[in-house]
Amino acid sequence: MLIGAVEAGGTKFVCGVGNENGEILDRVSFPTEQPEKTLAQVVAYFKDKQIEALGIGSFGPINIDRESSEYGYVTTTPKPGWTNYPVLPELKKIFNIPLGWDTDVNAAALGEATWGAAKGSDSCLYYTIGTGVGVGVFAEGKLLHGLVHPEGGHVLTRRHPNDTYAGKCPYHGDCLEGMAAGPGIEERWGVKASELPQDHPAWEMEAFYIGQALASAILLLSPKKIILGGGVMHQLHLFPLIREQVRKNLNGYVASAAVEAGIDDYIVPPGLGDNAGLSGSIALGLKAYQEAQ
Amino acid sequence: MLIGAVEAGGTKFVCGVGNENGEILDRVSFPTEQPEKTLAQVVAYFKDKQIEALGIGSFGPINIDRESSEYGYVTTTPKPGWTNYPVLPELKKIFNIPLGWDTDVNAAALGEATWGAAKGSDSCLYYTIGTGVGVGVFAEGKLLHGLVHPEGGHVLTRRHPNDTYAGKCPYHGDCLEGMAAGPGIEERWGVKASELPQDHPAWEMEAFYIGQALASAILLLSPKKIILGGGVMHQLHLFPLIREQVRKNLNGYVASAAVEAGIDDYIVPPGLGDNAGLSGSIALGLKAYQEAQ
Repeated sequence: MLIGAVEAGGTKFVCGVGNENGEILDRVSFPTEQPEKTLAQVVAYFKDKQIEALGIGSFGPINIDRESSEYGYVTTTPKPGWTNYPVLPELKKIFNIPLGWDTDVNAAALGEATWGAAKGSDSCLYYTIGTGVGVGVFAEGKLLHGLVHPEGGHVLTRRHPNDTYAGKCPYHGDCLEGMAAGPGIEERWGVKASELPQDHPAWEMEAFYIGQALASAILLLSPKKIILGGGVMHQLHLFPLIREQVRKNLNGYVASAAVEAGIDDYIVPPGLGDNAGLSGSIALGLKAYQEAQ
Repeated sequence: MLIGAVEAGGTKFVCGVGNENGEILDRVSFPTEQPEKTLAQVVAYFKDKQIEALGIGSFGPINIDRESSEYGYVTTTPKPGWTNYPVLPELKKIFNIPLGWDTDVNAAALGEATWGAAKGSDSCLYYTIGTGVGVGVFAEGKLLHGLVHPEGGHVLTRRHPNDTYAGKCPYHGDCLEGMAAGPGIEERWGVKASELPQDHPAWEMEAFYIGQALASAILLLSPKKIILGGGVMHQLHLFPLIREQVRKNLNGYVASAAVEAGIDDYIVPPGLGDNAGLSGSIALGLKAYQEAQ
């Protein structure tokens, strides 16, 4: 069975074809331009692919409330042309197959829970830490939506005592995204994160913010696994620093070996690597197919 | 149909009998002593009540993992006699009816979603702010458990700039519970919270901490309603102060009228008042009964 997948990002779209085992058989990517042009490219790519379902994991914020008249829209994004654009309704006009729709990070969380680092689990958090910070929540076997959808990249964290940087978030200044996403790192230190050496104090500071946010997320959501993806997390040396901060912040309060002796297997990179987003969209498509049966 | 309910607190146990409409028909309460003695009182109370199901909302931490051999235990509580005590297994020996078991705050969240302020909704958070801070999470129509269960009272918040108080939490010092629960208020100001006048700066400070925690919870969990109960929240003048802090912290980022113009109907007292806990335990019993059918 062939399943189409769209990883709809604000910078680029990745389209692919996979199967019910999460294997990616083909892929293509192109820059995100005006929605009419970009969606035409999506349609052209899938036209002869004989897919039986299609999953779309999208940049946001998006409307994922199935009861809403604007279900399937990208909503308040500042991205020119995309504000209140009916992405899913437009695709529905073309594809008469089950369509799955969720945030890019919820898609990645579902992908990781289906085929990746949280395989078989009914619970995980997926963080992407790159040009921004996003969080997908899979809990009790369901992707969490609620009022809008999780936007956990913008939680408030305490300042590192040596940090004088104001923060990059246009809404909150020094929220997690403002302090820990790539643009903030670059502005604070004057070089790209990828160019900072491993012994640079930037990394201890980065782990300070991420570890704090994860500790609070563990307390509030009690996830069974936390997966950290995105460009910044390509710096694998961050993982031990983050785990140490999490343990320090929890300070033995959460009575589970997972966050103590087992923490190396609790806070982990994506099992699907950089395919987490695209594989997650396959998982969304598969879920839509199964729900339609 | 009669449903038994136990609100198992660390200080007192409340037992009651209700029906499938959430009406409380009878109740009794007694101090929490050694578990054998207290559970004997529970058994004696229900013995002739002809209940068809029993729900127990318990102080914690507790084991709510149905796959665990210690399912139904109170676990790492420091309360003498109760550490690793098999509350639910002991009750199962006596009551051959469906038994519901969850945290006191998850019970209250379910009660509020069934008959209270979030009636009919598939999503709410229930905070109790009293001698401690606890959080129950009802999301996508399910009570959230995960690795252990939510312990969102211990999230880390930023310090109020005028606050020099160290914090009361034995694990984290100045976490939310350490700063905003009753004992912290009393130690900081030298009088009980209930004796502080409405124009005392304590309340602005209290709202600062609670509002910050709620803003981060909204970002991470996107609940459809937030219900604030517990002794401290009897100070109803706190509600507008907290709502103002939430709006200030979110700063327009969450695109929903619920957290803007509609915030007075979004962050609210329990619809079930001080019965939220006991009614929630009725709801747990009802759910166990329905699952057993």
